[in-house]
Amino acid sequence: MIPESFLKKEAEHFTGFTPEVFWVTHAGENKLSERLAIRPTSETIINDAYSKWVRSWRDLPLLINVWNSVLRAEITATRPFLRTTEFLWQEGHTVHATKEDADQEVLMILGFYRDLIEQQLAVPVLTGYKSEREKFVGALYTTTLEAMMPDGKAIQMVTSHNLGQNFSKPFEIKYLGKDEQLHYAWTTSWGVSWRLLSALIMLHGDDRGLIVPPHTAPIQIVIVPIHFKDRNKEGINEKTRKVTQILKSAGFRVHLDDREQYTPGWKFNEWELKGIHIRIEVGPRDVERKQVTLVRRDNFQKVNVNDDALVEEARKSLESIQITLFEKASLALKASIRQAANYDEFKQIIETNGGFVRACWCGSSECEDAIKNEIGATIRTLPFQDEVTFAACVKCGKPSTKVGYFARSY
Amino acid sequence: MIPESFLKKEAEHFTGFTPEVFWVTHAGENKLSERLAIRPTSETIINDAYSKWVRSWRDLPLLINVWNSVLRAEITATRPFLRTTEFLWQEGHTVHATKEDADQEVLMILGFYRDLIEQQLAVPVLTGYKSEREKFVGALYTTTLEAMMPDGKAIQMVTSHNLGQNFSKPFEIKYLGKDEQLHYAWTTSWGVSWRLLSALIMLHGDDRGLIVPPHTAPIQIVIVPIHFKDRNKEGINEKTRKVTQILKSAGFRVHLDDREQYTPGWKFNEWELKGIHIRIEVGPRDVERKQVTLVRRDNFQKVNVNDDALVEEARKSLESIQITLFEKASLALKASIRQAANYDEFKQIIETNGGFVRACWCGSSECEDAIKNEIGATIRTLPFQDEVTFAACVKCGKPSTKVGYFARSY
Repeated sequence: MIPESFLKKEAEHFTGFTPEVFWVTHAGENKLSERLAIRPTSETIINDAYSKWVRSWRDLPLLINVWNSVLRAEITATRPFLRTTEFLWQEGHTVHATKEDADQEVLMILGFYRDLIEQQLAVPVLTGYKSEREKFVGALYTTTLEAMMPDGKAIQMVTSHNLGQNFSKPFEIKYLGKDEQLHYAWTTSWGVSWRLLSALIMLHGDDRGLIVPPHTAPIQIVIVPIHFKDRNKEGINEKTRKVTQILKSAGFRVHLDDREQYTPGWKFNEWELKGIHIRIEVGPRDVERKQVTLVRRDNFQKVNVNDDALVEEARKSLESIQITLFEKASLALKASIRQAANYDEFKQIIETNGGFVRACWCGSSECEDAIKNEIGATIRTLPFQDEVTFAACVKCGKPSTKVGYFARSY
Repeated sequence: MIPESFLKKEAEHFTGFTPEVFWVTHAGENKLSERLAIRPTSETIINDAYSKWVRSWRDLPLLINVWNSVLRAEITATRPFLRTTEFLWQEGHTVHATKEDADQEVLMILGFYRDLIEQQLAVPVLTGYKSEREKFVGALYTTTLEAMMPDGKAIQMVTSHNLGQNFSKPFEIKYLGKDEQLHYAWTTSWGVSWRLLSALIMLHGDDRGLIVPPHTAPIQIVIVPIHFKDRNKEGINEKTRKVTQILKSAGFRVHLDDREQYTPGWKFNEWELKGIHIRIEVGPRDVERKQVTLVRRDNFQKVNVNDDALVEEARKSLESIQITLFEKASLALKASIRQAANYDEFKQIIETNGGFVRACWCGSSECEDAIKNEIGATIRTLPFQDEVTFAACVKCGKPSTKVGYFARSY
């Protein structure tokens, strides 16, 4: 909880948050002498602490990451993981001696996030800068990772900001340099929320339910005993336990579903809904033939695997699923990028296919505003390496200076 | 946040919480139609959900553990980790078909907690039941783990409750049994908060600072290069990096403190304050002699260790420190238990030494109340196995039925 007076210290930055803040006014039946806001974001708390903690160049860099829930009163309809009153996020706040150190931090963290999102969640992204209009209020610049959903709308997965000295000055975050002089520090901030999960669910799921990529799935393999009228019941149960143990020892995340009150068919459905990649069935014939039956969640292919080959086959299947999910999504991302040489083409793409529109831009916020108001699309990202312009500004027709990737977004 | 009407459903159980609840009344400038309480504990939320989720014996047991922060307005002085307005805890809530299943859960969880507290945190505890007066409001019975602090006051580390059907009835948590009849379920709850850390700090710390037992310490070993006027500086740095790598590969949690802006003496102090168990110093002579200098935090013994023997020596030292911490604390716990045959002895022990008083008790709440009001001591625990009484009730002199362990507590 943040005292109201404290929140007001950075009034400009928080003007945007005030309509969304929940106010605590009483403890028990006692009215508080000052209202307390439930934290909508942590800048005022963290920068105040930093101004006390940072004294010398020896204290830098100061690198702190926090996980917390923040609350913002949502007026519009909620969407699970995408737009909710309370959401879980992670916010990093760092302090550096120089702009170069801060630049490096911003890009290093963006790289970590990219690895997480592409390698673990199998969600491919476009990277780059935000425009002045779209950057974080108070940042020197904002970098971003942007994913494309099957319905043609983009999701901003991550942002990582160099805040320059824009926060260190009002908060008086100063350090004594090696030169014995006081300097304002340079700060960064960056974060992801559980909206990453919404992208994962929308991008990979199918009509049977969820698909969580193998690298990040809490359960990768489920083992289901298939009993026929007590035929070799104990042999089957023993084998499922043994197979579970072997796969666990090999490092897989495995669940043995030996619940007696459900039929195999019911279990198959449940695990497909939950997106488990590999189902291993063990029936009386499998015990006799020293094999198991392996079924993949992505293509529902059913194969018999010899007991000896099981670990290797499971490993290959999971890697293949991970790669297939990412490749499929990468192709979809590429296919979603369409080029527009003029405003008619631009409008037509946004209003029919959606996806990213690659278009030239004069660099003015007026054109961005007009495009947003007229079509609801914004610049999602400006590539780190300027791309060669191929036409006039898609909106005003004046000479263009940048190539941007536009889209509607969540 | 819990709507006021919701909280009132279980008015009896929450009468105790009402004076401590923070009330949210506004979102932005809009007054809410109903006040929202910031959660002081989760029963009303969780039991309401359970009443919707539990339908059949197939749904049982339902086992859910949650980590969260709860807020309670504290009127008395705060103590870090022991008594704070906001605290982090873990609460488990489970639903079972029978009393026996619930009994088993309560004791299994208490066993997990005991392993955590004794094996990881090296804090020895007494175990047993709470008296009727001291049990959780609404529980059938409460089990507990109690530790003793050096100042003679006990800390309740953990409680694990069988709630009987006392919560399932008002919340209508019912299941259809195999007999096709509806039954009220049996529930348990249990939890620990970060007060475990307060016990760890008070029990193991010394005048130089913190001591965190090796099994749970985030850093077990710190490595400090000792430079003398650039003598073989690169050799020393290379060796510290190599030693760090070797120890990390061997599974230790290691930190290389290669900060150039601090002297070795300054670093020694800092790491002692933070309670790191083993400090490894590498100076020019250590490089020449293919050895390191190893210093233990608990006895400050300094030994030279050949490079070849380092991993083995580190392992032995850490195990020895873990065992020593626990044994020292166990002896202190045993020494803190004093027997009282009558009320004068009882009072004298509590008012001079503190610690646990082993005393006989008639079983009446009146005697407990009187002891609490007169001396400030309560029954911390009643052993699971009744102990043979050796005197009349320490308070009223009537025949005793139980041996209890009394103490003042945090």
